[in-house]
Amino acid sequence: RINADRLWDSLMEMAKIGPGVAGGNNRQTLTDEDGEGRALFQKWCEEAGCTMGLDTMGNMFARYEGTDPDALPVFVGSHLDTQPTGGKYDGILGVLGGLELLRSMNDLGVKTKHPIVVTNWTNEEGTRFAPAMLASGVFAGMHTQDWAHAREDAEGLKFGDELARIGWKGDEPVGERKMHAFFELHIEQGPILEAEGKDVGVVTHGQGLSWTQVTVTGKDAHTGSTPMPMRKNAGLGMARMLEQVEEIAWSHKPDAVGAAGHIDVYPNSRNVIPGKVVFTVDFRSPQLDVIKDMETRFKAAAQKIADDMGLGVEFEKVGGFDPVEFDEGCVTAVRNAAERLGYSHRNIVSGAGHDACWINRMAPTAMVMCPCVDGLSHNEAEEISKEWAAAGADVLMHAVLETAEV
Amino acid sequence: RINADRLWDSLMEMAKIGPGVAGGNNRQTLTDEDGEGRALFQKWCEEAGCTMGLDTMGNMFARYEGTDPDALPVFVGSHLDTQPTGGKYDGILGVLGGLELLRSMNDLGVKTKHPIVVTNWTNEEGTRFAPAMLASGVFAGMHTQDWAHAREDAEGLKFGDELARIGWKGDEPVGERKMHAFFELHIEQGPILEAEGKDVGVVTHGQGLSWTQVTVTGKDAHTGSTPMPMRKNAGLGMARMLEQVEEIAWSHKPDAVGAAGHIDVYPNSRNVIPGKVVFTVDFRSPQLDVIKDMETRFKAAAQKIADDMGLGVEFEKVGGFDPVEFDEGCVTAVRNAAERLGYSHRNIVSGAGHDACWINRMAPTAMVMCPCVDGLSHNEAEEISKEWAAAGADVLMHAVLETAEV
Ligand SMILES: NC(=O)NCCC(=O)O
Ligand SMILES: NC(=O)NCCC(=O)O
Repeated sequence: RINADRLWDSLMEMAKIGPGVAGGNNRQTLTDEDGEGRALFQKWCEEAGCTMGLDTMGNMFARYEGTDPDALPVFVGSHLDTQPTGGKYDGILGVLGGLELLRSMNDLGVKTKHPIVVTNWTNEEGTRFAPAMLASGVFAGMHTQDWAHAREDAEGLKFGDELARIGWKGDEPVGERKMHAFFELHIEQGPILEAEGKDVGVVTHGQGLSWTQVTVTGKDAHTGSTPMPMRKNAGLGMARMLEQVEEIAWSHKPDAVGAAGHIDVYPNSRNVIPGKVVFTVDFRSPQLDVIKDMETRFKAAAQKIADDMGLGVEFEKVGGFDPVEFDEGCVTAVRNAAERLGYSHRNIVSGAGHDACWINRMAPTAMVMCPCVDGLSHNEAEEISKEWAAAGADVLMHAVLETAEV
Repeated sequence: RINADRLWDSLMEMAKIGPGVAGGNNRQTLTDEDGEGRALFQKWCEEAGCTMGLDTMGNMFARYEGTDPDALPVFVGSHLDTQPTGGKYDGILGVLGGLELLRSMNDLGVKTKHPIVVTNWTNEEGTRFAPAMLASGVFAGMHTQDWAHAREDAEGLKFGDELARIGWKGDEPVGERKMHAFFELHIEQGPILEAEGKDVGVVTHGQGLSWTQVTVTGKDAHTGSTPMPMRKNAGLGMARMLEQVEEIAWSHKPDAVGAAGHIDVYPNSRNVIPGKVVFTVDFRSPQLDVIKDMETRFKAAAQKIADDMGLGVEFEKVGGFDPVEFDEGCVTAVRNAAERLGYSHRNIVSGAGHDACWINRMAPTAMVMCPCVDGLSHNEAEEISKEWAAAGADVLMHAVLETAEV
C-alpha cells in the first residue's frame, strides 16, 4: 500500500503554487506558476532517486531504474497544469500518484525489472493554448511539433516562445522514448463512481471529442440609433447557435454531450451591437458516428442561422480525437490490482480527454479513476477524499508493479 | 460660414491620436491617448484666445469672453473619448465644431454679448466605465461625484484614480458653472438624414435608455464528463435571455430597440461549462412607458429562464435616462439657423444618448445633427463628408451666435 498521508501532503504542497480565488488553482500551462510547480516536482523526483529528462515540448520524464537496463520502461503520469479556475487534483493526482509509487518502492525496497518513468505532460488542459493534450499529442505523433510551437494564446503569445520563456524547453527530441506500457491515474470528473459507491473505476474506453471554433461576423453598430431591421447582430446569432448545440447534444441522449465554454464578443461594449463573436463548441461521445453527426448538423444549423440573419460564419476545427479503446492487457492489470487489494470497482468510460488517450495510440495503455465529490471538476471546488486518492494510487502501483515485473 | 477645410483638418489631426485597427479610433476615456487628445484640444483653444477650466470630473471648459462680463455663457461641445472600435466623428465633431466656431469668430472679428464656452465632457461613451455620459451627468446633478469616482472598469481600476493618473483631474468643483444655453452638434449615428437627403437634423427629442447588467450564475463543470441533465450552463441561460431581448424590442416596433453589446463569460475555457455570465441589456425608446414595459418583461422572462434551468440571476441597473424633450427656444434657434443658411432639414429624435440629454435638465438645450454614411457609428468605418460636417458646424455657429447675441 502507498503512504496515503504523504501523497495527500504532496498534493496540498503543490496546490500552494498558483492558488485560485476560491480554494482551487490557477496554474495554467507555461505561466510562471507552471514553472514553479515543475521545479517542485523535479526536486521531489530527484529526492526519490530519479534522473529527470525534458523534451522540446516541455514534457518531463523522471526515470527510476529497473534491474534490466535493456527493458523498455513502464510510464506513469498525467499533467500538473490546471484550468484558470481549476481544482487541486485534476491531473496532479496522476503525477504525484506516480511519484508516490516510487517513494513507496523505496520504503519497501521493491525493485522491478523494467525501469519506471513518471511523466508530466505539458498543456493537457488546452485553455491557454488549444487543443487540449497538446504535448502528449505531439509525443504520440498526432500533431507536428512546429504546429504545436506556433499555437497562440488569447494575447497572441506562442506556445514555443512561452515554453522557452519559463525555462522548461528541453533538448531531448520529442517522441523518441519507447514505452513498455503507460498508466494514468485521474479523478473521474463525473458523478458515476461516487453515486455507486465504488472505490475505483477501471477505464475501458474514452469518449471522442470535437472542438469547432465558430466565428460569427455581423456589423458593429450603435445600439441606440440603428433601427432593428438594419442590424447584423453577431451576438444574437451566437445565442441562436448555442441553442442548437444544446438541442443536438440532447438528441443523442445519453450518448453525447455538448456546450460552448469559450465565448468572446467584439468589441464588447454596452452600446455597440456585436460585430463579431468567436466561440468554441465542444461535442463528445463514445461513438465516432455520433460525433460526426453532431459536427455536421451543427454546422448546417449555424450556417442557416447566419444566412437567415445576414451574418457571416466560419468554422475551424481546433481540437479533436476519436473515441479510444484502452489496451486489454493493461485494463486487466488495473482490474486485477483492484480485486487483489479488495477495492470495489466498475468499468467506466472516460468522459474527459486525457494524455492516455493519445499515448494509447503508441503503447499499451490504461487508466485508473477515483471518484470526486458531486462529479465536479474544472471548478475550484473540485474535491476528493484522502481515502479515494489512496485507493486510486494503490491500484495504480499494483498495476504498474505487475506490468514492470517485480 | 465656418472654414470647412480647417474643421476637417482638425478632425483628421485629432484622429491621429489613439488610432484604431481599421481606420477609426480607440481613444477610450482616461487612457493615455485620451490625455493626449485633451492636451491637443487645450492647445488649440488657447491659440483661439480661450482660457481653460478643468473640473474634478475632468470636464474641460474653454472660455471665450463676451462683451458683457456678467452675462451667463452659452455652452457648446460634446466629447473627445471614443468607443474601443469607434469612429473619428462621434463626439469629436461637436467639440471641434465648437472650436471652429470661435476660430471663425476670430476670422470675422465677431463678438457676442454672452461668453461662449466650448466643453469636452469626460466619459461620454461609457464603455470603460458605465454609465455613458457620466461626467455630464454628475455636472447636471444626476449622479453624485463620489459614486462616479468609484466606478470601475473591467480591470477594477477606478474612474477617480484613472482621471488623476492621466493628470486631468481639475480643482474646479463640478457643476458650479451656470449656463445661458447649451448646444451640441453630433453625427446622427442612424440612417434617416442620409436616406432623405437632408443636410441637417433639428433634434427635438432624445430616446430614453435603460441599461440592465445581468449576472447569470450556474456551475463551472467539465464539458466532457458532466452528464447533460446535471448541468447548470450559465452560457445557455444567457443565450435564451438574448433571444428575449430581441423579441421584446421587436414587440414595440418601430418605437424601441434592444440588444446586448457587452457579454463576459467565466471562466471562458473551451472545456468548462460556463459557471457565470455577465452581460448588459440596452433597451431604448422615445416613450418612457415602453422602456419600463421592456425592463419589466425582460426581467420576468430572464427570471423564468433561470428558474427553469436551475440558474441564479441578478439584475443591476447600470445606466438609464428618461426620454428628453429639448428646449423650444433653442430648437427654434437651430431650425432658424438651418433655414437662414439654406440647408435642407427635418426634425429628428436622437436614437443615441448625448451629454445634451443631461444638460437639458439644467439649462435650455438643443442639438444639431449631420448625416453619417449608412447610418453607421460605433464602428471604425464611421464616415461623414466634409460638406456634412461644414453644414452642421455652420448651423451650430448661427444658433450659438443668435443665442449669445451678436
Ligand atoms: N481531463 C481533462 O479535463 N482534460 C482536459 C481535456 C478535456 O477537455 O477533456
Ligand atoms: N452618442 C453616443 O454614442 N453616446 C453614447 C451613449 C449611448 O449609448 O447612446
